[in-house]
Amino acid sequence: MTSEGAPDHQAVLDAFARTVGEEHAIRDPEMMAPYLVEWRDRYFGKAALVLRPGSTEEVSAILKLANETETPIVPQGGNTGLVGGQIPLGSGNEIVVSLGRLNRVRDIDLAGNTMIVEAGVVLANARGVAESSGRLFPLSLASEGSCQIGGVLATNAGGLSVLTYGSARELALGLEVVLADGSVWNGLKRLRKDNSGYDLKDLFIGSEGTLGIITAAVLRLYPRPAGTATAFAGAGSVEDAVGFFSRVLARAGPSVFAFELMSRRALEFVLRHANGTRDPLTSEHPWYLLFELSSLVDSEEAARLAEILLAEGLATGEIADAALAASLMQRQELWRLREQMSEVQKHEGGSIKHDVAVPVASIPEFIARADQLVELMIPGARPVPFGHLGDGNIHYNVSQPAGMDREIFLANWEALNAAVHEIVLDLGGSISAEHGIGRLKRDLLQHAAAARNRHDAEDQEGA
Amino acid sequence: MTSEGAPDHQAVLDAFARTVGEEHAIRDPEMMAPYLVEWRDRYFGKAALVLRPGSTEEVSAILKLANETETPIVPQGGNTGLVGGQIPLGSGNEIVVSLGRLNRVRDIDLAGNTMIVEAGVVLANARGVAESSGRLFPLSLASEGSCQIGGVLATNAGGLSVLTYGSARELALGLEVVLADGSVWNGLKRLRKDNSGYDLKDLFIGSEGTLGIITAAVLRLYPRPAGTATAFAGAGSVEDAVGFFSRVLARAGPSVFAFELMSRRALEFVLRHANGTRDPLTSEHPWYLLFELSSLVDSEEAARLAEILLAEGLATGEIADAALAASLMQRQELWRLREQMSEVQKHEGGSIKHDVAVPVASIPEFIARADQLVELMIPGARPVPFGHLGDGNIHYNVSQPAGMDREIFLANWEALNAAVHEIVLDLGGSISAEHGIGRLKRDLLQHAAAARNRHDAEDQEGA
Repeated sequence: MTSEGAPDHQAVLDAFARTVGEEHAIRDPEMMAPYLVEWRDRYFGKAALVLRPGSTEEVSAILKLANETETPIVPQGGNTGLVGGQIPLGSGNEIVVSLGRLNRVRDIDLAGNTMIVEAGVVLANARGVAESSGRLFPLSLASEGSCQIGGVLATNAGGLSVLTYGSARELALGLEVVLADGSVWNGLKRLRKDNSGYDLKDLFIGSEGTLGIITAAVLRLYPRPAGTATAFAGAGSVEDAVGFFSRVLARAGPSVFAFELMSRRALEFVLRHANGTRDPLTSEHPWYLLFELSSLVDSEEAARLAEILLAEGLATGEIADAALAASLMQRQELWRLREQMSEVQKHEGGSIKHDVAVPVASIPEFIARADQLVELMIPGARPVPFGHLGDGNIHYNVSQPAGMDREIFLANWEALNAAVHEIVLDLGGSISAEHGIGRLKRDLLQHAAAARNRHDAEDQEGA
Repeated sequence: MTSEGAPDHQAVLDAFARTVGEEHAIRDPEMMAPYLVEWRDRYFGKAALVLRPGSTEEVSAILKLANETETPIVPQGGNTGLVGGQIPLGSGNEIVVSLGRLNRVRDIDLAGNTMIVEAGVVLANARGVAESSGRLFPLSLASEGSCQIGGVLATNAGGLSVLTYGSARELALGLEVVLADGSVWNGLKRLRKDNSGYDLKDLFIGSEGTLGIITAAVLRLYPRPAGTATAFAGAGSVEDAVGFFSRVLARAGPSVFAFELMSRRALEFVLRHANGTRDPLTSEHPWYLLFELSSLVDSEEAARLAEILLAEGLATGEIADAALAASLMQRQELWRLREQMSEVQKHEGGSIKHDVAVPVASIPEFIARADQLVELMIPGARPVPFGHLGDGNIHYNVSQPAGMDREIFLANWEALNAAVHEIVLDLGGSISAEHGIGRLKRDLLQHAAAARNRHDAEDQEGA
């Protein structure tokens, strides 16, 4: 152990810098700054050094030295995480290891439908490489233009395609990981079937860098759809929306690419604050659905199926009105409504967020109970629920009452989180559906485990 | 620790019997016999006792006592495994814990498309319960009439549906597991998204009972297809077959239920030994393909797509002839050809088996090299390759030369396995694709890991 500022401390930092070469070791505070702050300015940290290794061997050398000198390491990908896991703490003793230079696509195997990419490959680039080879890498997130494959896997990112293709976990066949002592765990298997030994890959995925640094992965590729149909519908209740979802899933199954739920208020915020947006429907509805069907044949096939399903939904009353995108531009307009939903909330003042999941059948009960709770705890606060209905993953955000002081409202963050999480856990849900634990929810993990056990004990008494 | 036959040994066995009640503790050697032998008579063992617990609590009590008395335990499901993992060793000190009485379907959630079943539920029953609720539980194996969900998950079973739905791992959202000290790990989550903490579930799946005993699982359900089309085709080479597979996958994607490869010799053995079978094609081909497309609309839609793909395959020469099942009976006849393929080999004398996987693109090279090797090592021996082409999972079985002494041929088992596995590992494959490690391959694990590291080192030198 070394203490900061001591001469041997400097020698240790110099040794770290040599592992990647001086030009890839950032010591200048101004140059380090982008690595030390989260993009919404919610998390800040300090670091002794930022290292940008260019190979698995260099990552290995860093971790070996870190192990020998007991230097804490914070791995960082595209720095897009929402729970602070990628940001160092305030001590200034930590070293940030930024993986962005590990950005090679090592291999693409079209017959086997796999590709091997390094941790620093940006998600959108991985999708692009797959597409230019006639394949689909389905993972799709709002941050895909910046987030990197290593971070995506370390946090088991979800996004729009989970319903059909699963989360990051299901999309990785193999990993290469550097462990804390610098040894390289080689699990870069391209096999869809392999029952030789324990499944260690899935222990690293979702461990948020706490068990090792992912340096490369074998990703699954899928046939690229030849066409899509994008539909927008209004519904009278969450129950109706869930009913319509079941209908769509039963008929369209694996061709349902996404199935998103939005409250009227969430849409209103977008229409109010995002330039050039318009309501796709002529009348107002309490809830909206946005979903997409894909076809390996053509867009016409997808559109025919969407039309049949919308007609059935209208006939049964599960939906009250609907629009089908007639052009690529209309499709982009519909998606923009959903994509802007998180961003625009800042224009309505403070917002307290929850990234939770419950069984799909429990979504109506969850939203009803959470809305009641919010009104009791902070009268006038405005719930803005939206999210991935098909996965039960609701971003239950709450905007401040109009006119309230922002800081006073935000002082309720932890109390409201705690109360909403009680409902989630009571319904057998997860308090961290897709954004992970990081710094934000570290202290909640044990509470959640205890609540789950209590919940199950009650279930068994009731059975 | 107790020694066999001592009075305190008897007292320990009595205590074990009390955990499940005397009527579910089998001590009589004749009654124990079915639990101590594998169905092909390849593995035999002895046990001090066979216990048949009826609840998770009873499993917990057994493991707590086993931990305290250091008594080795062998969990057993339907006793259909092919690598001996479910059979005790010869010492007679072990206790077999048979999970068959844990056979309740605890819950089915149609909106969420999940069901919670106990470990002892027979796979075919789980499929049946899903089907009668209008859902599909896709896992399908030759042994589905006997194998149980607990064993299926403990061994991460694969089967016919891996190509589209993944193996057992991908089909389980949550588990309940009793650990070695008797504590119950509760991971019965029904969520498709949950990033709160390490993924321990996948460590238990595929661990073959070595880390705990699975007592219940949350299984994923899928929309039930409304119709299928089953096609059989002849191909001139494995390369052609792989080419045709890529075409089918690109066009039919998630509706491809299975894609099986069979050599002419494998088909001949079936035609010769399985009553009432006939060659679906009028001329002979070196290789055959059997695949099925499903449709959520109806069988006609599936058949139309199959016809288009077969016509394209014939036009490009990837396939040389094809037949489409015109009735349910014809479909069953086609599947019977594939299902009998393992069974009939016994009529051709001794058979040395390999359950391996390689990347799909490497299947042609694997079979060509393995065939050459077999002819060099055992001139006249007859390779009978068949398997799941879409997963790269080939059952590379080798029948003895006609007229050779069976025992003399089988004496080559380990030498041939070792040599064939070298080829598999050189191609980045797995020496245990779907049957697991068990007793059969325990000593091969370390060798395979070493070979994989060697293989990757060569890859990097070559890069």
